[in-house]
Amino acid sequence: MKIKVAKNSGFCFGVKRAVNISLETTKLKEKVVTFGPIIHNPQMVSYLKKCGVGFVNEIDDIVDETVIIRSHGITAQDYKKLLKKRVEIVDATCPIVKKAQDFAKKLTQDGFRLVILGEKNHPEVKALLSYVDDNAIVISGPEKKISLQENQKIGLIAQTTQIEEKFEQLAVRLLKSCKELYVVKTICNATFIRQAETKELAKNVDVLFVVGGKNSANTARLAEIARAENCKTYHIETAAEIEEKSLKNINYLGIAGGASTPDWIIEDVKRRIKKIKKT
Amino acid sequence: MKIKVAKNSGFCFGVKRAVNISLETTKLKEKVVTFGPIIHNPQMVSYLKKCGVGFVNEIDDIVDETVIIRSHGITAQDYKKLLKKRVEIVDATCPIVKKAQDFAKKLTQDGFRLVILGEKNHPEVKALLSYVDDNAIVISGPEKKISLQENQKIGLIAQTTQIEEKFEQLAVRLLKSCKELYVVKTICNATFIRQAETKELAKNVDVLFVVGGKNSANTARLAEIARAENCKTYHIETAAEIEEKSLKNINYLGIAGGASTPDWIIEDVKRRIKKIKKT
Repeated sequence: MKIKVAKNSGFCFGVKRAVNISLETTKLKEKVVTFGPIIHNPQMVSYLKKCGVGFVNEIDDIVDETVIIRSHGITAQDYKKLLKKRVEIVDATCPIVKKAQDFAKKLTQDGFRLVILGEKNHPEVKALLSYVDDNAIVISGPEKKISLQENQKIGLIAQTTQIEEKFEQLAVRLLKSCKELYVVKTICNATFIRQAETKELAKNVDVLFVVGGKNSANTARLAEIARAENCKTYHIETAAEIEEKSLKNINYLGIAGGASTPDWIIEDVKRRIKKIKKT
Repeated sequence: MKIKVAKNSGFCFGVKRAVNISLETTKLKEKVVTFGPIIHNPQMVSYLKKCGVGFVNEIDDIVDETVIIRSHGITAQDYKKLLKKRVEIVDATCPIVKKAQDFAKKLTQDGFRLVILGEKNHPEVKALLSYVDDNAIVISGPEKKISLQENQKIGLIAQTTQIEEKFEQLAVRLLKSCKELYVVKTICNATFIRQAETKELAKNVDVLFVVGGKNSANTARLAEIARAENCKTYHIETAAEIEEKSLKNINYLGIAGGASTPDWIIEDVKRRIKKIKKT
């Protein structure tokens, strides 16, 4: 049996950075917590806890710990609450998410009417809106209804996981009804590269193990993409979930990891598969 | 015979404004000249001369007159030369042309790499370039080769007479290879509305008189558009050029005027046609 691991499996740049920041912080500070789990991967959260990085779900639960803002970022309201706590804050917000937040503020301050391509209820979009006092138009697709005054200055950004093609289509549509359009590309390509690779892998293997937190939206999406290619797909969190029978009569096996899946879990999965096949 | 005059014949907003400014100025000042003919229409230039508005072709020919900057605008170099002359300057540059010049400067100052959709040798583009020390990329169409660094901030403007569709196509193309794109719509729609109307008129008449200066590019373009519709077309400057034989066996006759054609010349053409048909 041949095993192929998707090239861009595992931690994306923002997650890698947030985990490293947490580990560095715990070397310097005695009490360290993240506000919410640092990433959507239970194994990684447990590992960090062992290293001294705890987590709280509510700001009220923070006493005197150094607080790490996780890669997903937080709302302006939560940030203000944290400041009021007078605790030390380490901001591990993904720079791409941060860029979108900064531009939301800047464009609004500069008199642009802000338009965000994204899902109204997604935490990232909620955070973006919080930085502009909800003063923006959120649109989920270029074909959706949008009510804009004529001849405005429009500033366009996107939730980082939106599709580039849709973003371009929306830009063209807005261009037709404004006098100025300032487009800031806030889409992160890592997501799409990973998805494209998973799709390709799914086409060429008999079975695919998608590895990552069951609470990780991006991992679940990878499994969905693989299944759409009619590939037998298992979404697992750890090697322990692999059943021996799932490896029977398999010539080509693929492994793909989500953006919040640590490398060592992927390695572990690979090791266990090889072991089962040997016995 | 039925006569139909195109609805948007004659002075565009910018030309109307420049002529009015000239006439107002000559009421207040003794010596008034325009730098270059105020518009590309010999009859209007003669009329203005009668009213006291002369013109010079060279800045060196200016002594102590009040100088009117014509609707097409001038280069930064010429503007500096004028300032050195210490004469009074009245700026009648079309506000749409001026907007493009102002944004060329602003975008460059704000760190955007300036891209201009336009013809390199067109006076308007030459003027635009002069305001940014030639530090811009001029591209004549969205399909043309363009060498840009990756991940730049790009500022996009257009020569005012470019086609909107091409401008949008270029915007989409630039969006793919930059990190920020600031598009300022500097295209003037008056040109296209006039051209579309002339095309429609040419389809529905037996003969079309396109009225305007022989040195007026936009008038010449109207005649070209009409001819492309296989309509018998005459480009004339004044009523005097109409030959009686050209009106023989005509049921439907059209008249269209360029952006720099005064209303009274169009009226004159109409009057003469009616007179010929009566005799």
